[in-house]
Amino acid sequence: MLYFSVCDHRPFDAVLFHCTALIYRKHGDPAQVSMNLPNVGAKCVLVKILAAPINPSDINMIQGTYAILPDLPAVGGNEGVAQVLEVGSQVKALKPGDWVIPRDAGLGTWRTAAVLAEEDVISLPNDIPLLSAATLGVNPCTALRMLTDFEDLKPGDTVIQNAANSAVGQAVIQIAAAKGIQTINVVRDRPDFTTLIDRLKAMGASHVIKEETLRRPELKELFKSCPRPKLALNGVGGKSATELLRHVQVGGSIVTYGGMAKQPITVPVSALIFKNIKVQGFWVTQWKRNHSQDEGALRSMLDELCSLICQGKLTAPACSEVGLQDFGTALDKAMQPFTSAKQVLVM
Amino acid sequence: MLYFSVCDHRPFDAVLFHCTALIYRKHGDPAQVSMNLPNVGAKCVLVKILAAPINPSDINMIQGTYAILPDLPAVGGNEGVAQVLEVGSQVKALKPGDWVIPRDAGLGTWRTAAVLAEEDVISLPNDIPLLSAATLGVNPCTALRMLTDFEDLKPGDTVIQNAANSAVGQAVIQIAAAKGIQTINVVRDRPDFTTLIDRLKAMGASHVIKEETLRRPELKELFKSCPRPKLALNGVGGKSATELLRHVQVGGSIVTYGGMAKQPITVPVSALIFKNIKVQGFWVTQWKRNHSQDEGALRSMLDELCSLICQGKLTAPACSEVGLQDFGTALDKAMQPFTSAKQVLVM
Repeated sequence: MLYFSVCDHRPFDAVLFHCTALIYRKHGDPAQVSMNLPNVGAKCVLVKILAAPINPSDINMIQGTYAILPDLPAVGGNEGVAQVLEVGSQVKALKPGDWVIPRDAGLGTWRTAAVLAEEDVISLPNDIPLLSAATLGVNPCTALRMLTDFEDLKPGDTVIQNAANSAVGQAVIQIAAAKGIQTINVVRDRPDFTTLIDRLKAMGASHVIKEETLRRPELKELFKSCPRPKLALNGVGGKSATELLRHVQVGGSIVTYGGMAKQPITVPVSALIFKNIKVQGFWVTQWKRNHSQDEGALRSMLDELCSLICQGKLTAPACSEVGLQDFGTALDKAMQPFTSAKQVLVM
Repeated sequence: MLYFSVCDHRPFDAVLFHCTALIYRKHGDPAQVSMNLPNVGAKCVLVKILAAPINPSDINMIQGTYAILPDLPAVGGNEGVAQVLEVGSQVKALKPGDWVIPRDAGLGTWRTAAVLAEEDVISLPNDIPLLSAATLGVNPCTALRMLTDFEDLKPGDTVIQNAANSAVGQAVIQIAAAKGIQTINVVRDRPDFTTLIDRLKAMGASHVIKEETLRRPELKELFKSCPRPKLALNGVGGKSATELLRHVQVGGSIVTYGGMAKQPITVPVSALIFKNIKVQGFWVTQWKRNHSQDEGALRSMLDELCSLICQGKLTAPACSEVGLQDFGTALDKAMQPFTSAKQVLVM
């Protein structure tokens, strides 16, 4: 995994000769340091990081509990948008001014600038909102792939999901709505529940219900007006996932992309044998790696998402913009339960 | 579901004008009764049932706890082999002397004779062992499909299964061995464990281990000599299934066909997201219904199995042959735990 540039060094002449980065030398808390940048090699680009979110998986990586861990010391952050400032002599597809995002996890985006290999980034149109670009590569990609790769969903079909207010959940609501797919959105009860209903419905949510409602007869009423879901999306695990699974139609799927509850999923044997429910997982990092040699797959996914953004059908989740120097507070906020706004470092 | 013949009546002239059948009028215990047979309609066949096993699902059906239940009264039994005695004037593919087995569950095989629609049965070669024919339609079909339809297994690949001494388990061992696929066979500890190891190894089992071994370091030793399984087959559920799942290789599958432990499967979220394990189920009855319009699919599966039987590579599980009149004792024995022999009613 690339945390520092692998580009060739060259005699110093860059305008930016160092950057400020959030580095962790051991698993625990990152610290702000000043780092020299290597020279911009022939196949490299010098970029200024514009904005980089703090995602839960970034925190798990720093804590050392994530499925992939970098060699240390490492720059934190796996997502974000950068602007190209300078390109090496053999760089073909990028030019100064272009916006780029990482192709893979592990780039270390929590820094002001970086020298990166051209092949480690992919361009985006630079006329979409900054926060949409900064948060495009993980959650909306996860949502689009899950809505595409597991069940053949047609307009009028239903998808049920928990964690509907998460960044993935909000992207699912909007992308599904754009495709004419109904969504049943399950959220935890909270003081401002009716406000949340209104907000998610304004995004295109067909139904917004509390976790408890999954076990109540009123859900049967709901299924008089919309078909049972072909697809359930699970970002929670535990009982919540088992409850989702109960409502999936015969032959449908439940796809797990997160486990906020830190509990495994309990699957009744009869759901597998007699209802032919398929229980699977999705990890966008693995998808990107599986498709790393297929330029078209990533490009066409990003094009589809950017088109939705341009049409106003896909917006970034609520974000709090914070300066790099305030990262400590931002990390603390990102770890709170019921976080309503994503923390985004703006450089 | 067909429990009694749907064939047209015609003036009585059959040689066999009645049969003895095990019927249940309400969920509970079946009783032996004498029944008149309908006449052999133009598209029907009169058959003598030769042998019919007592499978766990037959008992669940009688108890009223199975996923599909017949209208009552119903003749018990879903599997068995019969010999054609007489065919109707429009019957095309069958002639007296042919052996046939049911195409679908629900035929009611625990009886001495029946008039059946030609389309409800399919022929088998009549030179294979009687007990192989009588037990072919459910368990070996389940084993073959699970080894074929979920992972692309190549010679040298590994499959792990629990309930390895069950009828499905024994078929898995033999079919896998015929294909050059290694099997790790998990069984419950028992007094005659070494005898069981010898018996399963003689069938072609690569490894036979106790449930407890799944949690022990010696399993790591085993994986130095054979690859981690691409496929796990689960007939038990509960902890046993979760233990199997832990050993499946990245991107592999666990397929559930039974739930003897009457416990759901606990699936860690990380196995789904980061190991991309697919958790699915298989029900041979549904497979047959899905392929009911595709004559070739069922035929080619039975041909493949009969070919293995003729080559001596697939044998029936240990069976106790009992007369129809002794069905009460046979049902009691079939419900015992650690049943080592399948009860087969021989008419």
